[in-house]
Amino acid sequence: VTAAPLSAEAFTSRLRDEGARRYHDRHPFHVRMNDGDLTPAELRSWVTNRYYYQTRIPIKDALILAKSDDPAFRRAWRRRLADHDGDDVDPGGIARWEALAAACGTSREALLSHAGVGPQARAACDAYVDFVQHAPLVEAVASSLTECFAPDLMRARIAAWERHYPWVATSGLTYFRERVSRASRDGAEALRFVVARAQSRDEQEACVAALVRKTEILWQLLDAIQAEGAAP
Amino acid sequence: VTAAPLSAEAFTSRLRDEGARRYHDRHPFHVRMNDGDLTPAELRSWVTNRYYYQTRIPIKDALILAKSDDPAFRRAWRRRLADHDGDDVDPGGIARWEALAAACGTSREALLSHAGVGPQARAACDAYVDFVQHAPLVEAVASSLTECFAPDLMRARIAAWERHYPWVATSGLTYFRERVSRASRDGAEALRFVVARAQSRDEQEACVAALVRKTEILWQLLDAIQAEGAAP
Repeated sequence: VTAAPLSAEAFTSRLRDEGARRYHDRHPFHVRMNDGDLTPAELRSWVTNRYYYQTRIPIKDALILAKSDDPAFRRAWRRRLADHDGDDVDPGGIARWEALAAACGTSREALLSHAGVGPQARAACDAYVDFVQHAPLVEAVASSLTECFAPDLMRARIAAWERHYPWVATSGLTYFRERVSRASRDGAEALRFVVARAQSRDEQEACVAALVRKTEILWQLLDAIQAEGAAP
Repeated sequence: VTAAPLSAEAFTSRLRDEGARRYHDRHPFHVRMNDGDLTPAELRSWVTNRYYYQTRIPIKDALILAKSDDPAFRRAWRRRLADHDGDDVDPGGIARWEALAAACGTSREALLSHAGVGPQARAACDAYVDFVQHAPLVEAVASSLTECFAPDLMRARIAAWERHYPWVATSGLTYFRERVSRASRDGAEALRFVVARAQSRDEQEACVAALVRKTEILWQLLDAIQAEGAAP
């Protein structure tokens, strides 16, 4: 027998609970970051490895666009591409992450070459693109629901960096500041879509699994950075 | 031995020549359209079948976006998504094609359902998405170079429709009018990219082949519409 679908409220709670308890703010490396325990080299390694993740975001968002037959959905989702790639008035999130790396003292050449990205970190980021490429639209969108937890993480991170890493110019933290409102909006939008679209219990469970998979990928990225230590 | 790469001028001429002589403005069905020889049912069938093609365009453009690592390339290419899907001020090309169908007397429900799209027409359009999905970036872009020939086609089409099909309200022709300048800009932009990016003779030949493949797809779409006759 097939289980009855969860109510919208129960499904939303399930997604929030499964996502929140696996979110990477609980990873030991992230806890050390916010406790101020990372060395400058470790902080730079995080910025460099995570930059590779950032460069994958517009690619996975374009893959999500390509899965939809609905111009209205694509019009709304297209804003995410603008958020990261920029437009006529906004340099975009990737440029803001490059400014963060500069504020941490990482050379632009080293950053853009991805030479400091370890193989496990790269594999984790590539696995995200691969997952989105092969998942049905609703599961690909569900994998983005980590955005629901990002605003709180960003606020805590900004406070922690300003307190513990004052050698990073506060102007470098613009990426984090911009994501507070954008992630909140993106997470709510994606949640509405997933709750409306996943009709059967099987689809709902597949969406929960997609979100869990995404939290695992973010966790593995931090595992990789931690294991590789402070790369030169 | 590998042949030396063509000069930029010779490569451009090759692309223009191979594309122009295979472009679908020479297809018998298209010649009949511009000569005023289509019945209203045939014109509606063309609009309905071609609408399915139009709905594939943002999907193939999103797939092209996902192939690029360059935020500047993606920023420029994103405009094509806006052109078709619309934005806050522009309803977009898909909505303009829907207005064209309405002006031809096709019901919106029938149009959006794609019920009037024949299997061969659908296969031709799907083959385009499939080609772009699996092609390297430069070949995927090269397949868009039919845009270079679209402005002349659009101008001739507008004149032909206004003369031969006066029962179609001229306001329905806005899609064609808008494409004159947009296709000109898109074609020139794609041509610059292909000429700059395809460095070896093999890559250049692969780009020519991609453009030829695209002209075949557009031709097959008209073959299908012609063969299926005036669908109800």
